[in-house]
Amino acid sequence: MTSPLRLHPDRFFPADKDTGTIARRLFEKVETLPIISPHGHTDPAWFAYDTPFEDATALFLWPDHYVLRMLYSQGIGFERMGLAPQGGTAEPDRRKAWKLFAENYYLFRGTPSRTWLDHAFATVFGIDVRLDASTADHYYDVIAEALKQPEFRPRALFKRFRIEVLATTEGASDPLKHHQKLQKEWDGRVITTFRPDGVVNPEIDGFVRNMAELAEVTHENVAVWNGYLKALRTRREYFRRVGRATATDHGHPTAITCDLAPAECQTLLDKALKGTLPPAEAELFRGQMLTEMALMSCEDGMTMQIHPGAFRNHNPQLYKDYGPDRGADIPMRVGYVDQLKPLLDKLGNRTDLSIILFTLDESNYARELAPLAGHYPCLRLGPPWWFHDSPEGMMRFRRSVTETAGFYNTAGFNDDTRAFLSIPARHDVARRMDCVYLAELVASRRLDEAEAAEIAVALAYALPKKAYKL
Amino acid sequence: MTSPLRLHPDRFFPADKDTGTIARRLFEKVETLPIISPHGHTDPAWFAYDTPFEDATALFLWPDHYVLRMLYSQGIGFERMGLAPQGGTAEPDRRKAWKLFAENYYLFRGTPSRTWLDHAFATVFGIDVRLDASTADHYYDVIAEALKQPEFRPRALFKRFRIEVLATTEGASDPLKHHQKLQKEWDGRVITTFRPDGVVNPEIDGFVRNMAELAEVTHENVAVWNGYLKALRTRREYFRRVGRATATDHGHPTAITCDLAPAECQTLLDKALKGTLPPAEAELFRGQMLTEMALMSCEDGMTMQIHPGAFRNHNPQLYKDYGPDRGADIPMRVGYVDQLKPLLDKLGNRTDLSIILFTLDESNYARELAPLAGHYPCLRLGPPWWFHDSPEGMMRFRRSVTETAGFYNTAGFNDDTRAFLSIPARHDVARRMDCVYLAELVASRRLDEAEAAEIAVALAYALPKKAYKL
Amino acid sequence: MTSPLRLHPDRFFPADKDTGTIARRLFEKVETLPIISPHGHTDPAWFAYDTPFEDATALFLWPDHYVLRMLYSQGIGFERMGLAPQGGTAEPDRRKAWKLFAENYYLFRGTPSRTWLDHAFATVFGIDVRLDASTADHYYDVIAEALKQPEFRPRALFKRFRIEVLATTEGASDPLKHHQKLQKEWDGRVITTFRPDGVVNPEIDGFVRNMAELAEVTHENVAVWNGYLKALRTRREYFRRVGRATATDHGHPTAITCDLAPAECQTLLDKALKGTLPPAEAELFRGQMLTEMALMSCEDGMTMQIHPGAFRNHNPQLYKDYGPDRGADIPMRVGYVDQLKPLLDKLGNRTDLSIILFTLDESNYARELAPLAGHYPCLRLGPPWWFHDSPEGMMRFRRSVTETAGFYNTAGFNDDTRAFLSIPARHDVARRMDCVYLAELVASRRLDEAEAAEIAVALAYALPKKAYKL
Repeated sequence: MTSPLRLHPDRFFPADKDTGTIARRLFEKVETLPIISPHGHTDPAWFAYDTPFEDATALFLWPDHYVLRMLYSQGIGFERMGLAPQGGTAEPDRRKAWKLFAENYYLFRGTPSRTWLDHAFATVFGIDVRLDASTADHYYDVIAEALKQPEFRPRALFKRFRIEVLATTEGASDPLKHHQKLQKEWDGRVITTFRPDGVVNPEIDGFVRNMAELAEVTHENVAVWNGYLKALRTRREYFRRVGRATATDHGHPTAITCDLAPAECQTLLDKALKGTLPPAEAELFRGQMLTEMALMSCEDGMTMQIHPGAFRNHNPQLYKDYGPDRGADIPMRVGYVDQLKPLLDKLGNRTDLSIILFTLDESNYARELAPLAGHYPCLRLGPPWWFHDSPEGMMRFRRSVTETAGFYNTAGFNDDTRAFLSIPARHDVARRMDCVYLAELVASRRLDEAEAAEIAVALAYALPKKAYKL
Repeated sequence: MTSPLRLHPDRFFPADKDTGTIARRLFEKVETLPIISPHGHTDPAWFAYDTPFEDATALFLWPDHYVLRMLYSQGIGFERMGLAPQGGTAEPDRRKAWKLFAENYYLFRGTPSRTWLDHAFATVFGIDVRLDASTADHYYDVIAEALKQPEFRPRALFKRFRIEVLATTEGASDPLKHHQKLQKEWDGRVITTFRPDGVVNPEIDGFVRNMAELAEVTHENVAVWNGYLKALRTRREYFRRVGRATATDHGHPTAITCDLAPAECQTLLDKALKGTLPPAEAELFRGQMLTEMALMSCEDGMTMQIHPGAFRNHNPQLYKDYGPDRGADIPMRVGYVDQLKPLLDKLGNRTDLSIILFTLDESNYARELAPLAGHYPCLRLGPPWWFHDSPEGMMRFRRSVTETAGFYNTAGFNDDTRAFLSIPARHDVARRMDCVYLAELVASRRLDEAEAAEIAVALAYALPKKAYKL
Repeated sequence: MTSPLRLHPDRFFPADKDTGTIARRLFEKVETLPIISPHGHTDPAWFAYDTPFEDATALFLWPDHYVLRMLYSQGIGFERMGLAPQGGTAEPDRRKAWKLFAENYYLFRGTPSRTWLDHAFATVFGIDVRLDASTADHYYDVIAEALKQPEFRPRALFKRFRIEVLATTEGASDPLKHHQKLQKEWDGRVITTFRPDGVVNPEIDGFVRNMAELAEVTHENVAVWNGYLKALRTRREYFRRVGRATATDHGHPTAITCDLAPAECQTLLDKALKGTLPPAEAELFRGQMLTEMALMSCEDGMTMQIHPGAFRNHNPQLYKDYGPDRGADIPMRVGYVDQLKPLLDKLGNRTDLSIILFTLDESNYARELAPLAGHYPCLRLGPPWWFHDSPEGMMRFRRSVTETAGFYNTAGFNDDTRAFLSIPARHDVARRMDCVYLAELVASRRLDEAEAAEIAVALAYALPKKAYKL
C-alpha cells in the first residue's frame, strides 16, 4: 500500500491558528518572488551544454552528499549505491541502486533532505505517492520518461524555477569556458564566484601544482609575494569580466586572519612552495590571505564570503576511495572575536567593504557573530549553513541573531547547493521559516504585520541582492 | 492547607490543541510498551535479595544526587539530611530529615526531580496531596506502611513497572554474585554492563589496587600490555557469560582516543602502575584504552558506550567528607571531532561495531555529534544525559540532532538512574517528549502521523533493543 | 502616513490562547510591583542635581551603546549623530541627528532596543505614532516640551517609575559625592556598588594612576600586598557606610580565580605597579583578586557579582576616537568549571557568601552555570546579561537553567542599564517573559498555577532583594 505524497500549502507553519494565519499572509508576499541564488555549487556545464540529466540515480542520489552520508551511516556502502571506489567496482544497475535508496528512504524522516527531495518529486515530476520500496520503480520510470523531455533540461528548469540569478563557484585558475559558452548562447543569469582556496591554502592537496597553474594563466611570478598578489588580482578581474562574478568565497578551517609584514609573507610563501610549511604557519598564510582578499575587495568591490569551520575529509578511507564532498566533512568549534581582529583592525570600519560570515558552530550566533555584525560596518551574516540549512536551524539562527544584529545585518538566504533540483525547495523552506519567525513576532506583538511583510521581502529578495551587489 | 497531587493525563503535551491532540494519539501507541532500561546504576543486590526498602528518607533522599545537590545548594548540609560525614555525625531522626526535605520541596519546582518524585509518590504509593511541610508526616507514614507489603519489594516493583530488561553497571573485577543469585532465583531480566573505568583510568582513586585485583581474578600478568589486554578480554567474556552483559560503558573526562604503538603502550602502563604518569599521558592511556575496547567490541560484539565530560568530585571538601556521587560533578566543555579521530580512522567504517556517544555539552549536538553519527556506520547517539534528562533537554536534543542524524542514528531512551522508583517516571517523560517533538513535526506538516507513530515506537522500544543488542 | 504606536497589553505573551491567558494572569500579580534595580550604570549626578534632561538626542541617542552600535553597523558614523571624535567635529544640529536616527529606526525591528524605546516614548512621553522620518520632528518637539516640566526631572521620574531601590556603580576611589548629596536632599533609595576593576585589573588603562589615587584616599601603602588589601577593605567599608552599597561588581575578561601564596602575590603586585606584568600574570593577578574579594565578602557580607567574558574595545580606531562603552565590546567564549575552582575550593561551601555569576556565553547556561549554582551554596545566577537581556535571551536562560538549578538559585532580574528611561521597559519585559516561561510550565502541566504565581513574585521582587541583601 502506497502513501500519498502531498505538499501541504501550510507546511512548516505552526499549528497555532493565529500565528499560522499570519505566517501564511506573510508568505503570500514572498512565495512567488524570483530566486536569488548568490552562493552555490551547481555545475556551469549543465547550463553551457544543456544536456539532459541521466536518470533518478545520477540526478538525486550520486551528487547529494546529504543523501550519501545518511545511507552510509546506516551501513549502506557506496558500491551498493552504484559508486565505484578508486580502482574498484560497484553495483552497475542504477535501478537497483535507486531501489536500495527507496527502501531506506524512511531514514530521512525529519531531515531537510526529505523535504527537498519530496518537493522536487512533487513539483518537478508531479509524483503523488511517497517514495518507498513499492514505488521505487514507478519513480524511476516517471523520472526517466520526464528527463527525455526538453522542459526537463537544465536551462528550461532554470526558467521554470524563476531563478533571477545563480552563482556557481570556480577555482582561481578556471578558464570559465562554461560561463563563456552559456553567456553567448543563453540569457539565463548564471555567474561565477571566485574561490581561491586551491592557491591560498597551502595545506590543500595539489597546492604547488595549483600555484604553477596560476602562474601560467597570469604570466606572473607567483614565487614572489607581490607577483602572487598580482596574479590573484588579475584572476579576480578575469572572474568579474568574463564570469560576471560579484563575490569571492573562502572555505578555511578557521576564521583566523593576520596582518603580517611583507618579508614575513615572503618567507611563508617560500616555505609553502617548498612544501615545508608547518601547520601553524599554514594557518598564518591562510590568515594573511584573508586580509589580502579583503584589501582587494576594497579595491574592486567584490563581496567576500568566509566559510570557516569544516573538518574536511574526516574519514581517510572514504577520501582515498571516493575523494572529497561525499558527506564525511564534520563541523568544528570555531571562534571569530580574536580571529577576525587583525583584518577588522585594518578594514573593519570601511563602509565600502562587504564581508559575509558563515558558521557551522551555532554557539557563535549570539555570542560572537551577531555582536560583530551589529557593530562593524563591513560585516553581514550569511544564512544558516549546510548542516543548519533546515527549519530548526533557521529558527535557531533568527532567534539567536536578530535581537543583537537585527534583520538588516543579515544577508538573506542562499542555498549553497550542488543539487540543482533542490533550489526551489530550499528557498521555499527558507521563506516559510522566516515568515514563521516573523509571524511569531507579530503574534506576540513585538512587530507590526506591515513591518513584518517588508522584512519578509527584504530577506527573500532585497537583502541578498544588496549583499552580493547583484 | 494541602495542595492536591494529580498527574494530568496530558502532562508535558503542548497547550496548542492540534499539537496536543496529535501528541496524545502518538503517546497512546507507546504508553504501555515494556520498559527497556539498557543503561543505569541500580543496585543488583536489590533484586538478588529482594529486601524491603527501608523508609522514605533512605529510599528517596539519600541515594538521589539530584535531590542532595539542590538542597545543598540552598545551604542545607548533608548532616541535617541524616548523612554523616567521614568520622562525623548526622541527624539521627530520619523522619526529621524527611520533614526538612518536605519543607524545601518547593525548591524543585520546574526541575525533573520534582516530576520523577511526584510520579513515584502518586503512582507507586497512591498519594494524592503534594509534599510540603504539612504533609510530610503523612508521606512518611504512607510510605513506611507500604514498604512493609510484599508488592513493594524490588522484584515486585520490577514486574509492576513492566521492565523487560534492566542493565546495572559493575566494575571490571566484580564477581557478579548478585547477578548470579538473582538469575538462579528469579526470571526478571537484570543484566550487567562492563564498566572498566577503575582499571583503564590511571587517575582514578585506587587504580593500582584495582589492577592487582584484576590480575588476581584473571590470573594474567597485567603489568605486561598484552597480559593486561587479555585480562580485560577475559573479564568481558565473564560479564557476557555470567552477567548477560551486552554492553560496555566508559566514563572518561574527555572523548580522546589514541592509536599508539605497543611499545608506547607498555611505557604508559609501566608509569601508570608506578603512579608516575603525568596528566597528559594519563589522557593518552585512557584514549588508547577506548580504542582497545572498540577493537574488543569488534571481536565480541559488545556495544560500547562513551560518557565523557564530567568533572568528577569538583568539591574537594565534600568528596573528603562524603565520597563520590553526591551531586558535586560538573559538566565540562568537550569535543569529539579531533578526539574520536584515531579510533574512527581505525574502526569508523565497521558496520559490526556499535558505539553510543553521550554528552553533557549540548553545543556538540548539532555541531559535532549529529554530523558524526550521520556519517560513521559505527556511531549512534545516546539520549540526553544526566543534567539534560529533562523535558527541555530532550527537546533541545531532538531539535538539534534530528535534521542531520535523523531518528535512526539515535539509540532511544535510557534512564541512567540510581533511583529505582524513578524509572517509570523517566521513561514516561521521555516517551511524552518524543511524542511532543513528533507531534510538532506532524502539526507543521513535516511528517505524516503514521510515520510519526512508527518512530515513536522505535524510539521507545525498538531502537534501544537494537542499539544494545537485547 | 504615520503608523500608530501602541503598547498592546498582551505584548510578548504567546499567541496560544491558553498559555497567553495564564501568562496574563501571572503577570497581573507582578505588573505593579516596585522596581528593584540592584545593578546598573545610571549616573548618580542625575539624582544629586536633578537637572532636566536636555533633549531627545542627548537623552536617547548618545548614551545608548545599543543604539549607537546598530546605526554604526549600517555605516552611519558617530559624527553624523552629533558625536565628535577626539579632536574632531560633528554634526552640531541635534534635531538633524535625531532625524537621522528616526529615518533608520527600522533597523531596530526585532531588537530589544526598539521595545525599550517604544515603551519610553509611549509611557513616559505619551507619544502615539511610531518613530520614522515623518514623525521625527513631532517626537523631537514633544520630548523637548516635556523635558521642561518638573515631572520629567530625574527624581520625579524615579518616583513615577516606582523604583524602590536603584544601584549605581562607582570605581574604588570614588568619593561618592553625588550619593552623599542625594541622600541629604532626597528620600529616593539610590545606592552605590563597589566596582574595583580600575585597581584590580593591571591591564586597564590608567591602572598605576588608579593605584596612586587609591593610596591617597586610604593613606595605605598599596605597593605592599597587605596594604593594598587593607586599602580595598577600607574602601569597601566606605562604600557601605557612605554609599549604602550592599554589593561589589567585577568585570573581568575571564572567570579565572587563583589562590596564590602571599609572596607570589607581592611579586605580581610589584610587576603590576612597574607595568611589567605579562598578560598571563595579569590574569593571575585578577584571578587572585577575585578570591580576595570573595574573602572580604565573607567578612563584610557584601554580595559579589562576577561579569566575565567581554572583549572590551574590540575596535581600536573607535576607541581612540570615542573612548569606551560605544558599542564595540564583543562577547568571548568563557568557562567557569576550572576557572572558579580555586575560589570555590576555598569558599564554595560557605553559606554566608553570595556570589552572583553572569555570562555572555550562553553555552555555559546548561553546561556549567546551572550545575555549579545547583550545587555550591555560595553561588547564584544573575539574569541574562547585556546582549541577552531580550525576550529570546530570557527564554533561553530559563529553559537552559531551570531544570538543573531551579528558580531559587537565580537572582531575579536586573537591568544593567545606562539609559534611565529604559528601566521600566526592561523590568516590564523581564516580568512578562518570566510569566511566559511559567505559563508554559503551567499549560503543559509541569507546575501548578498557584506555584507559578509565587515564583513570578519571587523572580520580580523577592529574589533580587534577597540576593543583594536589600
